[in-house]
Amino acid sequence: MRQRNKPWAEDMFAENPELVPTNPSERKGKWNDVFNNSNPIHLEVGIGKGQFIIGMAKQNPDVNFVGLELSSSVMVSALEKLLEEDVPNVRLLNENAQDLTTIFEENEVSRIYLNFSDPWPKNRHEKRRLTYKTFLDLYRVVMKPNSEVHFKTDNQGLFEYSLHSFSAYGMTLNEVSLDLHRSEMENNVMTEYEEKFSAKGSRIYRCEAQFRS
Amino acid sequence: MRQRNKPWAEDMFAENPELVPTNPSERKGKWNDVFNNSNPIHLEVGIGKGQFIIGMAKQNPDVNFVGLELSSSVMVSALEKLLEEDVPNVRLLNENAQDLTTIFEENEVSRIYLNFSDPWPKNRHEKRRLTYKTFLDLYRVVMKPNSEVHFKTDNQGLFEYSLHSFSAYGMTLNEVSLDLHRSEMENNVMTEYEEKFSAKGSRIYRCEAQFRS
Repeated sequence: MRQRNKPWAEDMFAENPELVPTNPSERKGKWNDVFNNSNPIHLEVGIGKGQFIIGMAKQNPDVNFVGLELSSSVMVSALEKLLEEDVPNVRLLNENAQDLTTIFEENEVSRIYLNFSDPWPKNRHEKRRLTYKTFLDLYRVVMKPNSEVHFKTDNQGLFEYSLHSFSAYGMTLNEVSLDLHRSEMENNVMTEYEEKFSAKGSRIYRCEAQFRS
Repeated sequence: MRQRNKPWAEDMFAENPELVPTNPSERKGKWNDVFNNSNPIHLEVGIGKGQFIIGMAKQNPDVNFVGLELSSSVMVSALEKLLEEDVPNVRLLNENAQDLTTIFEENEVSRIYLNFSDPWPKNRHEKRRLTYKTFLDLYRVVMKPNSEVHFKTDNQGLFEYSLHSFSAYGMTLNEVSLDLHRSEMENNVMTEYEEKFSAKGSRIYRCEAQFRS
Protein backbone atom coordinates (compact mmCIF):
# COMPACT_ATOMS: atom_id res chain seq x y z
CA MET A 1 0.00 0.00 0.00
CA ARG A 2 2.93 2.41 -0.59
CA GLN A 3 2.35 5.77 -2.18
CA ARG A 4 4.20 5.30 -5.48
CA ASN A 5 4.14 8.97 -6.35
CA LYS A 6 7.87 9.36 -6.92
CA PRO A 7 9.48 6.36 -8.63
CA TRP A 8 12.95 7.89 -8.32
CA ALA A 9 12.53 7.86 -4.52
CA GLU A 10 11.85 4.13 -4.64
CA ASP A 11 14.91 3.67 -6.84
CA MET A 12 16.99 5.53 -4.26
CA PHE A 13 15.69 3.28 -1.48
CA ALA A 14 16.61 0.20 -3.53
CA GLU A 15 20.10 1.57 -4.05
CA ASN A 16 20.64 1.86 -0.26
CA PRO A 17 19.56 -1.48 1.20
CA GLU A 18 21.88 -1.04 4.19
CA LEU A 19 19.71 1.93 5.32
CA VAL A 20 16.37 0.91 3.79
CA PRO A 21 16.22 -2.87 4.27
CA THR A 22 14.46 -4.66 1.41
CA ASN A 23 11.62 -7.12 2.12
CA PRO A 24 11.15 -6.01 5.74
CA SER A 25 8.68 -8.82 6.44
CA GLU A 26 11.58 -11.25 5.99
CA ARG A 27 13.33 -9.54 8.93
CA LYS A 28 10.40 -10.24 11.25
CA GLY A 29 11.81 -11.52 14.55
CA LYS A 30 15.37 -10.86 13.31
CA TRP A 31 15.73 -7.09 13.55
CA ASN A 32 18.56 -7.37 16.04
CA ASP A 33 20.48 -9.27 13.33
CA VAL A 34 19.99 -6.30 11.00
CA PHE A 35 21.65 -4.03 13.58
CA ASN A 36 24.13 -6.74 14.56
CA ASN A 37 23.64 -6.11 18.29
CA SER A 38 21.15 -6.87 21.05
CA ASN A 39 20.12 -3.31 21.81
CA PRO A 40 16.43 -2.44 22.27
CA ILE A 41 14.47 -1.45 19.18
CA HIS A 42 12.51 1.79 19.16
CA LEU A 43 10.07 2.45 16.34
CA GLU A 44 8.86 5.80 15.04
CA VAL A 45 5.62 5.60 13.07
CA GLY A 46 5.55 8.47 10.59
CA ILE A 47 9.07 9.87 10.51
CA GLY A 48 8.45 12.65 7.99
CA LYS A 49 11.79 14.07 6.92
CA GLY A 50 13.58 12.22 9.72
CA GLN A 51 14.93 14.99 11.95
CA PHE A 52 13.51 13.41 15.12
CA ILE A 53 14.63 9.82 14.54
CA ILE A 54 18.12 10.84 13.44
CA GLY A 55 18.48 13.22 16.40
CA MET A 56 17.29 10.50 18.80
CA ALA A 57 19.66 7.97 17.26
CA LYS A 58 22.62 10.29 17.79
CA GLN A 59 21.53 11.01 21.37
CA ASN A 60 20.98 7.30 22.12
CA PRO A 61 23.68 5.20 20.41
CA ASP A 62 22.71 2.15 22.47
CA VAL A 63 19.21 2.02 20.98
CA ASN A 64 18.27 0.78 17.51
CA PHE A 65 15.80 3.00 15.70
CA VAL A 66 13.45 1.87 12.95
CA GLY A 67 11.42 4.54 11.17
CA LEU A 68 8.25 3.95 9.19
CA GLU A 69 7.05 6.46 6.63
CA LEU A 70 4.19 5.93 4.22
CA SER A 71 5.16 8.68 1.78
CA SER A 72 8.21 7.80 -0.31
CA SER A 73 8.66 11.40 -1.44
CA VAL A 74 8.90 12.54 2.20
CA MET A 75 11.05 9.63 3.37
CA VAL A 76 13.63 10.33 0.71
CA SER A 77 14.61 13.49 2.64
CA ALA A 78 15.35 11.37 5.71
CA LEU A 79 17.46 9.04 3.58
CA GLU A 80 19.40 11.98 2.17
CA LYS A 81 20.16 13.17 5.72
CA LEU A 82 21.36 9.69 6.69
CA LEU A 83 23.62 9.47 3.62
CA GLU A 84 25.33 12.70 4.67
CA GLU A 85 26.37 11.49 8.10
CA ASP A 86 27.38 8.37 9.97
CA VAL A 87 24.45 7.21 12.12
CA PRO A 88 24.75 3.42 12.32
CA ASN A 89 21.63 2.77 14.46
CA VAL A 90 18.83 3.88 12.11
CA ARG A 91 16.90 1.98 9.45
CA LEU A 92 14.05 3.36 7.36
CA LEU A 93 11.04 1.53 5.98
CA ASN A 94 8.65 2.90 3.35
CA GLU A 95 5.74 0.99 4.87
CA ASN A 96 2.26 1.43 6.27
CA ALA A 97 1.58 1.19 10.03
CA GLN A 98 -1.29 -1.18 9.16
CA ASP A 99 1.37 -3.76 8.29
CA LEU A 100 3.31 -3.57 11.57
CA THR A 101 2.56 -7.14 12.60
CA THR A 102 3.92 -8.48 9.32
CA ILE A 103 7.20 -6.60 9.91
CA PHE A 104 7.79 -7.19 13.63
CA GLU A 105 7.48 -10.27 15.80
CA GLU A 106 5.59 -10.18 19.10
CA ASN A 107 7.58 -8.38 21.84
CA GLU A 108 10.23 -7.23 19.35
CA VAL A 109 9.75 -3.46 19.88
CA SER A 110 10.60 -1.68 23.16
CA ARG A 111 9.06 1.71 22.45
CA ILE A 112 6.98 3.50 19.81
CA TYR A 113 7.14 7.18 18.97
CA LEU A 114 4.25 9.06 17.38
CA ASN A 115 5.07 12.66 16.51
CA PHE A 116 2.62 15.14 15.02
CA SER A 117 0.54 12.41 13.44
CA ASP A 118 -2.17 13.37 10.98
CA PRO A 119 -5.12 14.50 13.18
CA TRP A 120 -7.86 13.28 10.79
CA PRO A 121 -10.26 15.71 12.48
CA LYS A 122 -13.50 14.44 10.93
CA ASN A 123 -15.37 11.90 13.06
CA ARG A 124 -15.79 9.60 10.07
CA HIS A 125 -11.99 9.39 9.78
CA GLU A 126 -11.45 8.39 13.43
CA LYS A 127 -10.20 4.94 12.38
CA ARG A 128 -7.30 6.48 10.49
CA ARG A 129 -5.84 8.21 13.58
CA LEU A 130 -2.67 6.45 14.73
CA THR A 131 -4.04 6.42 18.30
CA TYR A 132 -7.27 4.65 17.32
CA LYS A 133 -7.83 1.36 19.12
CA THR A 134 -7.05 -0.85 16.13
CA PHE A 135 -3.60 0.75 15.89
CA LEU A 136 -3.13 0.31 19.65
CA ASP A 137 -3.93 -3.38 19.06
CA LEU A 138 -1.10 -3.59 16.52
CA TYR A 139 1.33 -1.73 18.78
CA ARG A 140 0.53 -4.01 21.70
CA VAL A 141 1.24 -7.11 19.63
CA VAL A 142 4.72 -6.04 18.53
CA MET A 143 5.72 -4.32 21.81
CA LYS A 144 7.14 -5.76 25.01
CA PRO A 145 4.84 -5.87 28.08
CA ASN A 146 4.59 -2.56 29.99
CA SER A 147 6.30 -0.61 27.20
CA GLU A 148 5.32 2.90 26.23
CA VAL A 149 4.01 4.88 23.28
CA HIS A 150 5.59 8.35 23.39
CA PHE A 151 3.24 10.77 21.70
CA LYS A 152 3.50 14.46 20.91
CA THR A 153 1.40 16.79 18.83
CA ASP A 154 0.39 20.42 18.53
CA ASN A 155 -3.15 19.39 17.60
CA GLN A 156 -5.44 19.94 20.59
CA GLY A 157 -8.26 17.84 19.18
CA LEU A 158 -6.00 14.88 18.42
CA PHE A 159 -4.45 15.06 21.89
CA GLU A 160 -7.85 15.21 23.61
CA TYR A 161 -9.00 12.24 21.51
CA SER A 162 -5.83 10.28 22.20
CA LEU A 163 -6.06 10.76 26.00
CA HIS A 164 -9.49 9.17 25.73
CA SER A 165 -8.35 6.39 23.41
CA PHE A 166 -5.26 5.45 25.45
CA SER A 167 -7.19 5.42 28.74
CA ALA A 168 -10.16 3.53 27.26
CA TYR A 169 -7.62 0.91 26.13
CA GLY A 170 -6.47 0.58 29.75
CA MET A 171 -3.15 2.37 29.25
CA THR A 172 -1.62 4.57 31.94
CA LEU A 173 -0.72 8.15 30.99
CA ASN A 174 2.71 9.11 32.30
CA GLU A 175 4.65 12.37 32.01
CA VAL A 176 1.70 14.29 30.62
CA SER A 177 2.72 17.75 29.47
CA LEU A 178 0.16 20.26 28.20
CA ASP A 179 2.84 22.77 27.23
CA LEU A 180 6.03 20.88 26.52
CA HIS A 181 8.26 23.81 25.66
CA ARG A 182 7.41 25.57 28.92
CA SER A 183 7.99 22.46 31.02
CA GLU A 184 11.04 20.80 32.51
CA MET A 185 11.56 18.04 29.96
CA GLU A 186 15.23 17.57 29.17
CA ASN A 187 16.74 16.17 25.98
CA ASN A 188 13.64 16.83 23.91
CA VAL A 189 14.50 16.20 20.26
CA MET A 190 12.31 18.32 18.02
CA THR A 191 10.75 17.37 14.70
CA GLU A 192 10.89 19.80 11.77
CA TYR A 193 7.19 20.52 12.32
CA GLU A 194 7.68 21.05 16.06
CA GLU A 195 10.42 23.64 15.48
CA LYS A 196 8.19 25.55 13.12
CA PHE A 197 5.04 25.55 15.22
CA SER A 198 6.59 26.07 18.64
CA ALA A 199 8.46 29.07 17.21
CA LYS A 200 5.02 30.50 16.39
CA GLY A 201 4.02 30.05 20.04
CA SER A 202 1.79 27.00 19.55
CA ARG A 203 1.55 24.66 22.53
CA ILE A 204 3.05 21.22 22.12
CA TYR A 205 1.22 18.43 23.98
CA ARG A 206 3.00 15.25 25.04
CA CYS A 207 2.42 12.06 27.00
CA GLU A 208 3.84 8.59 27.51
CA ALA A 209 1.07 6.01 27.30
CA GLN A 210 2.04 2.74 28.95
CA PHE A 211 0.52 -0.66 28.21
CA ARG A 212 -0.49 -2.79 31.18
CA SER A 213 1.35 -6.09 30.68
CA MET B 1 -11.56 17.58 61.32
CA ARG B 2 -13.57 20.73 60.48
CA GLN B 3 -11.90 24.10 60.35
CA ARG B 4 -13.57 25.80 63.31
CA ASN B 5 -12.33 29.23 62.38
CA LYS B 6 -15.68 31.00 62.47
CA PRO B 7 -17.97 29.81 65.28
CA TRP B 8 -20.80 32.04 64.02
CA ALA B 9 -20.75 30.12 60.72
CA GLU B 10 -21.27 26.87 62.62
CA ASP B 11 -24.11 28.45 64.52
CA MET B 12 -25.72 29.46 61.23
CA PHE B 13 -25.43 25.90 59.92
CA ALA B 14 -27.07 24.60 63.11
CA GLU B 15 -29.91 27.06 62.65
CA ASN B 16 -30.65 25.70 59.17
CA PRO B 17 -30.80 21.91 59.51
CA GLU B 18 -33.11 21.62 56.48
CA LEU B 19 -30.23 22.86 54.28
CA VAL B 20 -27.25 21.70 56.34
CA PRO B 21 -28.32 18.30 57.71
CA THR B 22 -26.97 17.59 61.18
CA ASN B 23 -25.11 14.34 61.92
CA PRO B 24 -24.62 13.43 58.25
CA SER B 25 -23.21 10.00 59.14
CA GLU B 26 -26.67 9.10 60.44
CA ARG B 27 -28.04 9.70 56.93
CA LYS B 28 -25.69 7.14 55.42
CA GLY B 29 -27.68 4.97 53.01
CA LYS B 30 -30.75 7.20 53.52
CA TRP B 31 -29.93 10.34 51.52
CA ASN B 32 -32.92 9.83 49.26
CA ASP B 33 -35.10 10.11 52.38
CA VAL B 34 -33.51 13.49 53.09
CA PHE B 35 -34.60 14.70 49.64
CA ASN B 36 -37.88 12.77 49.84
CA ASN B 37 -37.53 11.41 46.31
CA SER B 38 -35.64 8.71 44.40
CA ASN B 39 -33.62 11.00 42.14
CA PRO B 40 -29.90 10.35 41.62
CA ILE B 41 -27.48 12.00 44.03
CA HIS B 42 -24.62 14.08 42.68
CA LEU B 43 -21.87 15.18 45.05
CA GLU B 44 -19.57 18.18 44.72
CA VAL B 45 -16.41 17.92 46.80
CA GLY B 46 -15.24 21.43 47.65
CA ILE B 47 -18.14 23.73 46.80
CA GLY B 48 -16.47 26.99 47.77
CA LYS B 49 -19.11 29.71 47.79
CA GLY B 50 -21.60 27.45 46.05
CA GLN B 51 -22.22 29.14 42.70
CA PHE B 52 -21.63 25.90 40.74
CA ILE B 53 -23.74 23.56 42.84
CA ILE B 54 -26.64 25.99 43.08
CA GLY B 55 -26.48 26.69 39.33
CA MET B 56 -26.41 22.98 38.58
CA ALA B 57 -29.31 22.31 40.95
CA LYS B 58 -31.44 24.90 39.16
CA GLN B 59 -30.48 23.50 35.76
CA ASN B 60 -31.18 19.91 36.87
CA PRO B 61 -34.23 19.82 39.13
CA ASP B 62 -34.43 16.01 38.82
CA VAL B 63 -31.03 15.51 40.46
CA ASN B 64 -30.25 15.80 44.17
CA PHE B 65 -27.07 17.72 44.93
CA VAL B 66 -24.97 17.34 48.06
CA GLY B 67 -22.07 19.74 48.53
CA LEU B 68 -19.08 19.17 50.79
CA GLU B 69 -16.95 22.06 51.96
CA LEU B 70 -14.22 21.86 54.56
CA SER B 71 -14.08 25.57 55.33
CA SER B 72 -17.05 26.77 57.35
CA SER B 73 -16.26 30.42 56.63
CA VAL B 74 -16.44 29.74 52.87
CA MET B 75 -19.48 27.46 53.04
CA VAL B 76 -21.47 30.07 54.87
CA SER B 77 -21.58 32.10 51.63
CA ALA B 78 -23.20 29.15 49.86
CA LEU B 79 -25.75 28.87 52.65
CA GLU B 80 -26.55 32.57 52.39
CA LYS B 81 -27.20 32.14 48.65
CA LEU B 82 -29.50 29.19 49.32
CA LEU B 83 -31.44 31.12 51.95
CA GLU B 84 -32.14 33.85 49.40
CA GLU B 85 -33.82 31.58 46.88
CA ASP B 86 -35.88 28.45 46.61
CA VAL B 87 -33.64 25.57 45.47
CA PRO B 88 -35.11 22.43 47.02
CA ASN B 89 -32.56 19.92 45.68
CA VAL B 90 -29.36 21.06 47.46
CA ARG B 91 -27.90 20.12 50.83
CA LEU B 92 -24.60 21.35 52.23
CA LEU B 93 -22.18 19.53 54.53
CA ASN B 94 -19.30 21.14 56.38
CA GLU B 95 -17.26 17.95 56.16
CA ASN B 96 -13.94 16.57 54.99
CA ALA B 97 -13.69 14.42 51.84
CA GLN B 98 -11.66 11.96 53.91
CA ASP B 99 -14.88 11.06 55.70
CA LEU B 100 -16.94 10.30 52.56
CA THR B 101 -17.43 6.63 53.38
CA THR B 102 -18.84 7.46 56.79
CA ILE B 103 -21.40 9.77 55.15
CA PHE B 104 -22.47 7.74 52.10
CA GLU B 105 -23.30 4.08 51.63
CA GLU B 106 -21.76 2.03 48.82
CA ASN B 107 -23.34 2.88 45.43
CA GLU B 108 -25.26 5.81 46.90
CA VAL B 109 -23.70 8.54 44.71
CA SER B 110 -24.21 8.74 40.92
CA ARG B 111 -21.65 11.41 40.08
CA ILE B 112 -18.91 13.47 41.74
CA TYR B 113 -17.84 16.97 40.74
CA LEU B 114 -14.40 18.36 41.49
CA ASN B 115 -13.99 21.99 40.52
CA PHE B 116 -10.78 23.99 40.86
CA SER B 117 -9.53 21.81 43.68
CA ASP B 118 -6.46 22.90 45.61
CA PRO B 119 -3.50 21.91 43.39
CA TRP B 120 -1.10 21.15 46.26
CA PRO B 121 1.81 21.63 43.83
CA LYS B 122 4.60 20.29 46.03
CA ASN B 123 5.40 16.61 45.49
CA ARG B 124 5.33 15.96 49.23
CA HIS B 125 1.69 17.10 49.29
CA GLU B 126 0.57 14.75 46.50
CA LYS B 127 -1.58 12.76 48.92
CA ARG B 128 -3.70 15.82 49.65
CA ARG B 129 -4.80 16.27 46.02
CA LEU B 130 -8.44 15.27 45.57
CA THR B 131 -7.45 13.16 42.53
CA TYR B 132 -4.86 11.14 44.48
CA LYS B 133 -5.50 7.40 44.46
CA THR B 134 -6.67 7.20 48.08
CA PHE B 135 -9.43 9.72 47.28
CA LEU B 136 -10.31 7.75 44.13
CA ASP B 137 -10.65 4.72 46.43
CA LEU B 138 -13.18 6.60 48.55
CA TYR B 139 -15.10 7.86 45.51
CA ARG B 140 -15.29 4.36 44.06
CA VAL B 141 -16.75 2.98 47.27
CA VAL B 142 -19.62 5.47 47.47
CA MET B 143 -20.31 5.67 43.72
CA LYS B 144 -22.35 3.44 41.46
CA PRO B 145 -20.46 1.20 38.98
CA ASN B 146 -19.36 2.97 35.77
CA SER B 147 -20.15 6.41 37.18
CA GLU B 148 -18.04 9.48 36.48
CA VAL B 149 -15.96 12.09 38.26
CA HIS B 150 -16.38 15.40 36.43
CA PHE B 151 -13.27 17.45 36.96
CA LYS B 152 -12.29 20.94 35.91
CA THR B 153 -9.42 23.21 36.82
CA ASP B 154 -7.32 26.04 35.48
CA ASN B 155 -4.22 24.53 37.05
CA GLN B 156 -2.12 22.88 34.34
CA GLY B 157 0.02 20.90 36.78
CA LEU B 158 -2.98 19.51 38.65
CA PHE B 159 -4.66 18.53 35.39
CA GLU B 160 -1.54 16.79 34.08
CA TYR B 161 -1.21 14.96 37.39
CA SER B 162 -4.87 14.00 37.44
CA LEU B 163 -4.82 12.56 33.90
CA HIS B 164 -2.04 10.30 35.14
CA SER B 165 -3.79 9.43 38.39
CA PHE B 166 -7.19 8.66 36.79
CA SER B 167 -5.62 6.50 34.05
CA ALA B 168 -3.29 4.69 36.46
CA TYR B 169 -6.41 3.84 38.47
CA GLY B 170 -7.90 2.25 35.36
CA MET B 171 -10.44 4.99 34.71
CA THR B 172 -11.41 6.05 31.19
CA LEU B 173 -11.09 9.73 30.30
CA ASN B 174 -14.15 10.98 28.42
CA GLU B 175 -14.94 14.42 27.02
CA VAL B 176 -11.44 15.75 27.57
CA SER B 177 -11.22 19.47 26.88
CA LEU B 178 -7.94 21.33 27.04
CA ASP B 179 -9.60 24.71 26.52
CA LEU B 180 -13.16 24.46 27.78
CA HIS B 181 -14.29 27.98 27.00
CA ARG B 182 -13.20 27.66 23.38
CA SER B 183 -14.88 24.29 22.92
CA GLU B 184 -18.41 23.16 22.15
CA MET B 185 -19.56 22.22 25.65
CA GLU B 186 -23.10 23.34 26.28
CA ASN B 187 -24.72 24.13 29.62
CA ASN B 188 -21.41 24.69 31.40
CA VAL B 189 -22.12 26.12 34.84
CA MET B 190 -19.21 28.26 36.00
CA THR B 191 -17.75 28.52 39.49
CA GLU B 192 -16.88 31.92 40.91
CA TYR B 193 -13.22 31.12 40.37
CA GLU B 194 -13.82 29.98 36.79
CA GLU B 195 -15.55 33.24 35.88
CA LYS B 196 -12.65 35.24 37.24
CA PHE B 197 -9.84 33.27 35.62
CA SER B 198 -11.43 32.58 32.26
CA ALA B 199 -12.15 36.31 31.97
CA LYS B 200 -8.38 36.82 32.29
CA GLY B 201 -7.88 34.44 29.37
CA SER B 202 -6.66 31.44 31.40
CA ARG B 203 -7.42 28.06 29.90
CA ILE B 204 -9.89 25.86 31.74
CA TYR B 205 -9.17 22.12 31.53
CA ARG B 206 -11.93 19.54 31.94
CA CYS B 207 -12.53 15.80 31.74
CA GLU B 208 -15.00 13.13 32.81
CA ALA B 209 -13.15 10.23 34.42
CA GLN B 210 -15.21 7.05 34.41
CA PHE B 211 -14.77 4.12 36.76
CA ARG B 212 -14.73 0.67 35.20
CA SER B 213 -17.45 -1.29 37.03
